Parts: sequence; C-alpha cells; structure tokens
Amino acid sequence: MTTVGILGGGQLARMLALSGAPLGLRFLVMDTAPDACAGQFAPLLVGDYRDEAALAEFASKVDVATFDFENVPAESAEWLSRRVPVFPNPGALAVAQDRLVEKTLFRDLGIPVGAFADVDSLDVLRSEVERLGGACILKTRRLGYDGKGQFRIKSPADVDAAWEALGAQAATVGLIVEAFIPFERELSVVAVRSRDGEFRTWPLTENWHVDGVLSASLAPARIEDVLARAAGDYARGLAEALDYVGVFALELFLREGQWLANEMAPRVHNSGHWTIEGAETSQFQNHLRAVLGLPLGDTSVRGHACMLNWIGEMPDARAVLQESGGHWHDYGKEPRTGRKVGHATLRADDASSLAGALSRVGARLGRDTQVAPVVARLSG
Amino acid sequence: MTTVGILGGGQLARMLALSGAPLGLRFLVMDTAPDACAGQFAPLLVGDYRDEAALAEFASKVDVATFDFENVPAESAEWLSRRVPVFPNPGALAVAQDRLVEKTLFRDLGIPVGAFADVDSLDVLRSEVERLGGACILKTRRLGYDGKGQFRIKSPADVDAAWEALGAQAATVGLIVEAFIPFERELSVVAVRSRDGEFRTWPLTENWHVDGVLSASLAPARIEDVLARAAGDYARGLAEALDYVGVFALELFLREGQWLANEMAPRVHNSGHWTIEGAETSQFQNHLRAVLGLPLGDTSVRGHACMLNWIGEMPDARAVLQESGGHWHDYGKEPRTGRKVGHATLRADDASSLAGALSRVGARLGRDTQVAPVVARLSG
Repeated sequence: MTTVGILGGGQLARMLALSGAPLGLRFLVMDTAPDACAGQFAPLLVGDYRDEAALAEFASKVDVATFDFENVPAESAEWLSRRVPVFPNPGALAVAQDRLVEKTLFRDLGIPVGAFADVDSLDVLRSEVERLGGACILKTRRLGYDGKGQFRIKSPADVDAAWEALGAQAATVGLIVEAFIPFERELSVVAVRSRDGEFRTWPLTENWHVDGVLSASLAPARIEDVLARAAGDYARGLAEALDYVGVFALELFLREGQWLANEMAPRVHNSGHWTIEGAETSQFQNHLRAVLGLPLGDTSVRGHACMLNWIGEMPDARAVLQESGGHWHDYGKEPRTGRKVGHATLRADDASSLAGALSRVGARLGRDTQVAPVVARLSG
Repeated sequence: MTTVGILGGGQLARMLALSGAPLGLRFLVMDTAPDACAGQFAPLLVGDYRDEAALAEFASKVDVATFDFENVPAESAEWLSRRVPVFPNPGALAVAQDRLVEKTLFRDLGIPVGAFADVDSLDVLRSEVERLGGACILKTRRLGYDGKGQFRIKSPADVDAAWEALGAQAATVGLIVEAFIPFERELSVVAVRSRDGEFRTWPLTENWHVDGVLSASLAPARIEDVLARAAGDYARGLAEALDYVGVFALELFLREGQWLANEMAPRVHNSGHWTIEGAETSQFQNHLRAVLGLPLGDTSVRGHACMLNWIGEMPDARAVLQESGGHWHDYGKEPRTGRKVGHATLRADDASSLAGALSRVGARLGRDTQVAPVVARLSG
C-alpha cells in the first residue's frame, strides 16, 4: 500500500486523490486550513508548511510527496526531500517560485520571453521602464498568484505609484519589471514527464482570463501545427533542464504569430482540468503515474472539450448536466468572492456541437460573456 | 450540501463515492466490516443492517440512501425508507432478493424465462425435476450470491443429493428449481431510470464467467440490433413495473437466437464497470444523478471497451498501464481467495486495436485464458 502525501489541500489535491484512488493509492493531504476541500475525500493533516514537527509527521506517514500548491516554501520542500522522495524536485519548485529565475531560465533555454529586468530600487525601475518603452508590469518575484502583487505601468509617469505599491517588497521577495505584451491569445502546454524521462503533452489548450483568473479553456486549441510543435518543444526543454517529474503547465502568449512564454506552473493546472473527460488519461492520473514511476497514460484528446471555471459560487448544475457531454465539478467549498469553487467541462465529438452546447449553457446561466470567446473561436 | 448514504461499503460504494465527489456530494457508507474498502474515501459507519440504533444514526446523517449490496434485509430498507428517501425503493429490492418472485415478475411482464418452480419438499423437487426434463439447478430463493447456495442436478438421480445439500433451507429462505439452460452467450443490459421516469441503457455488454464469477465483459456486445432492442425493452418494462430509480442490470442468456432472462441486480453492476472510461457517463455517476433527481448523463459508448476482473489478488498494474487505453482499478482490499479485488478496463477506438491490447495484456500476465474468449469474439 502506497500513501501519497500532497502539500496543499485544495481542489487540485482533491482531484488528485479522486483520480489516484483507482490506482490503489492512499493519500495524506497537508494544509493550513482545517476545512481544505481535499479533506472531504482524503485524510487531512492541518499544519503550517514551515512547522518542522508537522512536516515530520507528514513525512513519517507518506511514501512519496507532491504538491497542489506551488508556493510551499522551497526550504520546506527541501527539508522534506531529505526524508521522502519529493516530485517535482524542490529545485524545480524554487525556479517556478521566482519570476526572475524562471524567465532567465526560459531565455537561457531559447524559449522566447518578453523583455524583463531585476528591480531593486526606484532608480532602476525608472531606467528599466524607459528602456522597455514605458508600458510595463511591475511584479513581485515570488508569491505572486492570480494577479496579486502586480502593478500595471502604462507610462513612465506611473513609476512612482508602482514603487509606492510594491517597492517595499524589493528587499523581501524581490521585484521584476516586464515589458507589457499586448498579446492576442493565451495558450498553455500541459505536459508530463516520468521518472525515467519519458515526456508527453496533451493537445495545446487556449485560455481566456477575466480579472486575471482563468475563465475558460478550449482543447485542442485552434492553432497551426508548427506553433503547437514549437510549444511542445519548449515544454520538453524546460522539463529536461529541471529534471522535472510530474505534470506542469507552460503558459504562453501568442503575438503576431510568435510565442512568448509567460510562466510555468509546477503542478497540475487549471487549464488541464478538461483532460478528466476530454482525454484518454487525465492530468491528475498521469501526475500520479509519473510520481510513482508507473507507465504514463495516453494523452490523446477525445473530440473537443471546453472547461468553464466557476468563481465565487456554483451556478445551477442542471444547466450543464442536461447537455449530453456535460460534466460537473463542485469542489465542495464554501462560496466566497474570487474563490475557485468548481468547473464544468463540455465535451463533444465535433467543434460545432461543442459550440452549440456552450451557447445553450451560457444562455441558461446568463453567462453568455463567459462562453462567447470560446464559441467565436470554434466558429472561426 | 447533500449527503448520500450507501448501505454496503465495498467496491461499488467506493466507486459511487469517487464518481459522486465531482457533483459536490458527501457520502456516508454503512458496512458490517470496519475495513470496508469504501471507507478509504468516505466516512464509514460500522454496524449491522438489522441494528435499528445503527440504522437510525445512518438515517439521521444522510439526505438520501442507496445500496452497494442487494442483500440488505428488505425490512431494514423499509424501516429506513420511512425516515429518508431510499432509491431504489425497498419493494424493488425485495423482488430482486427473491428468485421466485423475480422470475414470476419476468414471466408476467413477457420477459422470456426458462421453466422454474417453487420447491418446498423433496417430493415436489422430484416431480418438478421430472417435469423439467432432468437437468436442473436447485437454488435458494434468497441470499444467493455468485454461485453460492446452488446445486446442479444433472439427472433425476441427483435429486436426493440436491435435497441433502439445500433442503434444510426450504423452510428458511425457500427454494426454487430452474431448468438448466445450455446457453451459448451471457449478456447484460445495464440501465438507469430517473425519478421522473426517464430511462436509458448503455450499449449491451457480453459477459464471461469463471466458476460463477464474472471474468470479463465486452461492450458494445456484438449482437444483432433487433436482439439489442428487445433486451432494452425488457429492461424498460421491468424498471417501469418496479418504479425503479437508479442503475440496475438485467442478466440475460442467449440460446439459439432467443433471450432468456436470468436475474436482475438492483444496483450498479460489475458488468457496467467499463462505463467509467468507455462511456460518456459512467453507471456510477448516472446512478447518483438518478437518485438525486438530476438530469441523466449520456450513455453513449466511446469506441470499444473490455473489463477484466481481478479475483483473489491484483496482478502487476504495469501490464495494463503501458497500453494506451489501459485503465486500472485497485479496490484497496486485502488479497483473499475468490474476492473481487480490482479490475482493469482496456479501451480502444476500434475492435481490432482492442483485441491486440487484450492479447498483449493476457500474454504479459499469463492470463491468456481470461482474454481469449473476448479476443475470439472481437475477431469473429
């Protein structure tokens, strides 16, 4: 009997546990919140990730550890990895936690990125904004999540306000300034790499965000093969450089037919939720297979799938369940503004059927604006 | 928040809970065994189904109740149904628990059945065996399960031995004698009926048994449309007669191109496990949707699927997981002779690919005899 430990007990841990049960696995989830939603289907250890006693108890009860949350302190992951196998490795986690290190690695690997610079003072910020052409985003290097810890600089006149907002963090988590990229499309590669180096990707996914939070994903993305191959190659290069084991997502912008890498997420990813019903093997099952050294499953798509995220509160499930390819995912969370509480996946054998189902679901739920860009893409 | 109570905590309850989690459901499982495998992923109440205090506690904690086990005492189901909605209804459960009542209902509904008779004495047994032509099976009316409580009578000379073996049960659970049917094929209809009477079936499944226990299932069955339609009609008639809500299986024999009904199972069924990966909606999810009054999901098949049952102990998962359509289900049970400990499902887009995958898995596991009849059917 193998017990998989998961640091973080949110919906990703929950879906990992549900997906891993058929492999005969047991789970132990660690979270700071006693009501973490993964705890409804797996034993939950409540504790702080920096608390060595809690980490020691966690380590003593699991055979292998992984993450549902990338901001587990790298030193905690490191500490844990001296006691139990940890996948992905703490070094990979540390890279993904630091935007400057991550972007530098992208550049070193030949993965195209927009211009960026380290910022440790107002003067440096001012000169870099000038150099980058004025339109920039100032971000914290670490602990940024879903648009928090960011300041949009539209022109050099905003530099003081940006420094006012985030400057104090230069000395703690660090700052990075990035050229603003007026991209046309956002896509992601969700990929998996096994312990012995086998690498697979699911078909490229196109994503739409609202207020910095994922709203909808469509797979397979409507994109030229040559671009899809390049994106897969970037993900492979990154995985190999990091000796990565497990599932990760590489988020990419598309601008004037060129890729620009945004960031990587060292875990199963919201833009891969459609794989539960839309692919032969889900990202959750393949993450566990990778972590355990089992053969990776087929990442082939089944038809066309669209995932709709539910933020804040769950809509009426019937609007989705009455569609023949409608699947529902309620994470069992209390409603709260801005919180990811669930998602739906609509699957169909052909694109026009999927567009029809999306339109009907959007109309029933009064969420036409959420489905509209996906319907437009499918009809384009 | 809705809590679904399940009487019985085996693999069916386990797969119900795993399938129902995405609907935002909570579960409470009741079983007599403290190590019931559903308890690994759902809260478990240990108690006897006849213990009113335990049943009362169960009833107080759930919003609706259902079964993973058809031999819950009908009176316990009845008692429970006065406190909380119970699906399927206890009357349907009672019919399925009694072979004589069940076969009589089949006959009354125009569902073809082999000859059978109630047996309450050795004399009656002797005369019925004569009337039925000599080759018969004597069975207990109730509590039979997977070949237990049965005696094969090959000729009238076996009548005394049969009575010796089972006669004492005539006064307790009752006995039925059935004409032995030298059938050619065994198939099952797995069907679901909603609270408002909507009825759907998955494609017909062909089954192979070894020592009275299911060994392999293939879906969709290779069968003439007219036969498949008749089987679906029988299942619909039965569901309507019983005002059945939820998933059930109707087991049928095929002999000389004619159907003969064997029995019904008033629950999700081993021959429907392939629906997890092989259909748009699984039997587990649709059972819960039915029980909760949610819209039923699409029962369409995705390609071709074969389920292989693992009895006694789990084989090496890698033999299956290395196949692109290979899916693994370990129920988390201790190995034990004759125990259903898990299954695998192989799925492919076409029949010849499925046959190839089955042959490779059979060879790797030294289980050629388990896969051979399915491969032969696919190649036929």
